[in-house]
Amino acid sequence: MPSSRLTFDAWEGTYAPRMDHLRHSAVRDLFAAVSRPNVIGLSGGSPDISSLPLDEVAECARSMILEEGPKALQYGGSDGRIQMREIVCEMLAENGIDVSPDEMILLAGSQMGLDFLGRAFLQPGDTIICEGPTYLGALQAFSAYEPNIVCVEMDQDGMRMDLLEETLERLGPRGAKFIYTIPNFQNPTGVTLSLERRRRLIELSHEYEIPLVEDDPYGRLRYEGEHVPPMKSMDPSVIYLGTTSKIFAPGLRLAWMVAPKPMLAHVNLCLQGAGLCVSSLSQVMAEYYFTRTDWKATLEKIKDVYHERRDAMLDALAESFGPEVEWSWPKGGFFVWLTLPPYFDTDQMMSVALERGVAYVPGRNCFPDGRGKSSMRLAFCYEKPEKIREAIARLSDVVSDRMDLYRAFLAAGALPEPEPSAQIGAHHDAPKTLFVRNGR
Amino acid sequence: MPSSRLTFDAWEGTYAPRMDHLRHSAVRDLFAAVSRPNVIGLSGGSPDISSLPLDEVAECARSMILEEGPKALQYGGSDGRIQMREIVCEMLAENGIDVSPDEMILLAGSQMGLDFLGRAFLQPGDTIICEGPTYLGALQAFSAYEPNIVCVEMDQDGMRMDLLEETLERLGPRGAKFIYTIPNFQNPTGVTLSLERRRRLIELSHEYEIPLVEDDPYGRLRYEGEHVPPMKSMDPSVIYLGTTSKIFAPGLRLAWMVAPKPMLAHVNLCLQGAGLCVSSLSQVMAEYYFTRTDWKATLEKIKDVYHERRDAMLDALAESFGPEVEWSWPKGGFFVWLTLPPYFDTDQMMSVALERGVAYVPGRNCFPDGRGKSSMRLAFCYEKPEKIREAIARLSDVVSDRMDLYRAFLAAGALPEPEPSAQIGAHHDAPKTLFVRNGR
Repeated sequence: MPSSRLTFDAWEGTYAPRMDHLRHSAVRDLFAAVSRPNVIGLSGGSPDISSLPLDEVAECARSMILEEGPKALQYGGSDGRIQMREIVCEMLAENGIDVSPDEMILLAGSQMGLDFLGRAFLQPGDTIICEGPTYLGALQAFSAYEPNIVCVEMDQDGMRMDLLEETLERLGPRGAKFIYTIPNFQNPTGVTLSLERRRRLIELSHEYEIPLVEDDPYGRLRYEGEHVPPMKSMDPSVIYLGTTSKIFAPGLRLAWMVAPKPMLAHVNLCLQGAGLCVSSLSQVMAEYYFTRTDWKATLEKIKDVYHERRDAMLDALAESFGPEVEWSWPKGGFFVWLTLPPYFDTDQMMSVALERGVAYVPGRNCFPDGRGKSSMRLAFCYEKPEKIREAIARLSDVVSDRMDLYRAFLAAGALPEPEPSAQIGAHHDAPKTLFVRNGR
Repeated sequence: MPSSRLTFDAWEGTYAPRMDHLRHSAVRDLFAAVSRPNVIGLSGGSPDISSLPLDEVAECARSMILEEGPKALQYGGSDGRIQMREIVCEMLAENGIDVSPDEMILLAGSQMGLDFLGRAFLQPGDTIICEGPTYLGALQAFSAYEPNIVCVEMDQDGMRMDLLEETLERLGPRGAKFIYTIPNFQNPTGVTLSLERRRRLIELSHEYEIPLVEDDPYGRLRYEGEHVPPMKSMDPSVIYLGTTSKIFAPGLRLAWMVAPKPMLAHVNLCLQGAGLCVSSLSQVMAEYYFTRTDWKATLEKIKDVYHERRDAMLDALAESFGPEVEWSWPKGGFFVWLTLPPYFDTDQMMSVALERGVAYVPGRNCFPDGRGKSSMRLAFCYEKPEKIREAIARLSDVVSDRMDLYRAFLAAGALPEPEPSAQIGAHHDAPKTLFVRNGR
């Protein structure tokens, strides 16, 4: 019997092959770096919760234990508490989604829903369709099931339906297991899918018999423009995901999936296998928060905070970058997508950026196939406006230095003259209209 | 675009094949029945939380939001909070397990750990080894990965090492992906693995290079006899699972896995893909409970409650059943395993039992292969002693009626004479010493 500690992996070679496909989270890897003093983090998508009324939340927490303790502390059913599901139904009704609590299942975070979608639908090699770029957590969740992920390019109105249709034609009916989209203020681009395209997307999903997954964490965080109805409000067969993370607190890990009942039965089975049920404590906490505080007034305050930060970032970008840099103009949510000239590698640039005190998510993490090399995701949700301005100034310095260096090399003949195609990049062509240069 | 609700499963045929292997939870299916008035539930393993000091817990809940709100409500790291991991390290040290927080990862329930073990190790067709019978939630969790589950029979000292060795010899080195055991007050039998067998099990796991998974939810719930050291305290390569569910509150969904670091890195990847992190709210709630209340004094009270209920069940069984019925004698935990004569089918009997007002878990749910037909799991953790006595009396009536009917049929020549082998049953022979007849 060995008494010494293992310092190597004694089980190397016994893990399942799927482990080789699991993606590391760049955001996680960055957390350590970002916690260094002087680094301003534009990498993480953590909501700002400093506007929450802690006194009221504390009172909710106290009363829920006194009044509902035996239930808040006990196991619950695998669908989630009926009280919480009814609250969510009311919220959804405000967005035109008319569902009953038995068409909903509660989850410990919407990413758990993505994992269960993978589990319910995917065999290794199955095809799924996402936006390109897409949410890196979704890529992580799906990657455990070893799918073939096809990314459809976006422009300023979201996923391009002409390209989607080409893809679907190529794959044929039921040629993909599902289409995954974040229609509102997409992560990572901040772009919103237009109403016209939402309608077309629903048509295509029926024409090709492919389930449509609508992930909507940011839908209530619009800072300008008109609300666009969710696809779930137009088509009951849509699988819809929502969460408390951005309208209350991510620390609860509480989200929901709304879907046709037969599909939900599959998800319920996954849920039972994976963990029996969602934390009752979190559910009751959310029930109290959404019924005993003026959460909508709080949310308005929080939106004002994000709005100001978005403006700070967009202003700073316009001040700091020249016409060779492009970025998106989000009307809500948390993120701006920024693309540098094609000779940039934002992975490689990261160490220098961290040294100068700014962190971002390198764009390659938002694609399954190595694209996104010269792009990055910038989050404006977490840092204060003055910090955001400072962070963009630092980023601009890093970028300028690299550009100067590149031009010097070019002038010295140390680099081949860039060809037009290389300078724009094939992956760069299509989503060009996604970006603004120096303003809207 | 369809406007009517779907009433059938439009996606039938598009689900992954693994969904056909996912097991329904009998316990879940029973919940609806058990919630009927007049049914006494001996089916569920819900801890009794009525002894928790709700005033103190409410004060913990209030202060944690006021003092740690910005952290309790925010995302956390995927390993879990260092504060919580340090508290768990102290608890484990009391059981001789000497680990540091970086050898631990927090989970939303230990079943999530079982799911991740499946994910990290299992390809369809891989073999794993469990006790027979075993925890039905483990069978559910593993079944998603389509393994070949080999169950090794038990006696009153737990998994039989002679049979395990036979199995391992047959499978060869690394012939199974892991061995899963619940050594203390096993679910569903209540049996504890002896110290001698723990040592042997560790030896065998090294000899055959097969990871050993020690699931220990009930270790602190011993009502008589001497504590047996966990295998993790004897061998650092053991993968150890623990939970707050039975020492505080299952509503938190908070558990831990302790394992060699390279293995934990794999689990961390799974965790990132499946949901980013465990509820910060639950972690901080537990931290406050375990540091600001006299939780050990509370646990002693809770143990007294369970002890009394166990005695009530064992007494009632001895009073109600004749020598043809056998059951286990748990020294801790939640469960008694009861076996009826082999002509019983506890699945079929369930509807009659529910009609008479008593619920149990049919034994077949605790095997992967159809065994356990004439057995059942009885939980004494949740109902009060007088209810337990009444429930056993009802169960005894149901059983007597069936026995009378069987004898009447037999006397009338309507059934073939039972052969000895059929009466005992092959699956019934080996674990015979697991049971007591009319007392210890």
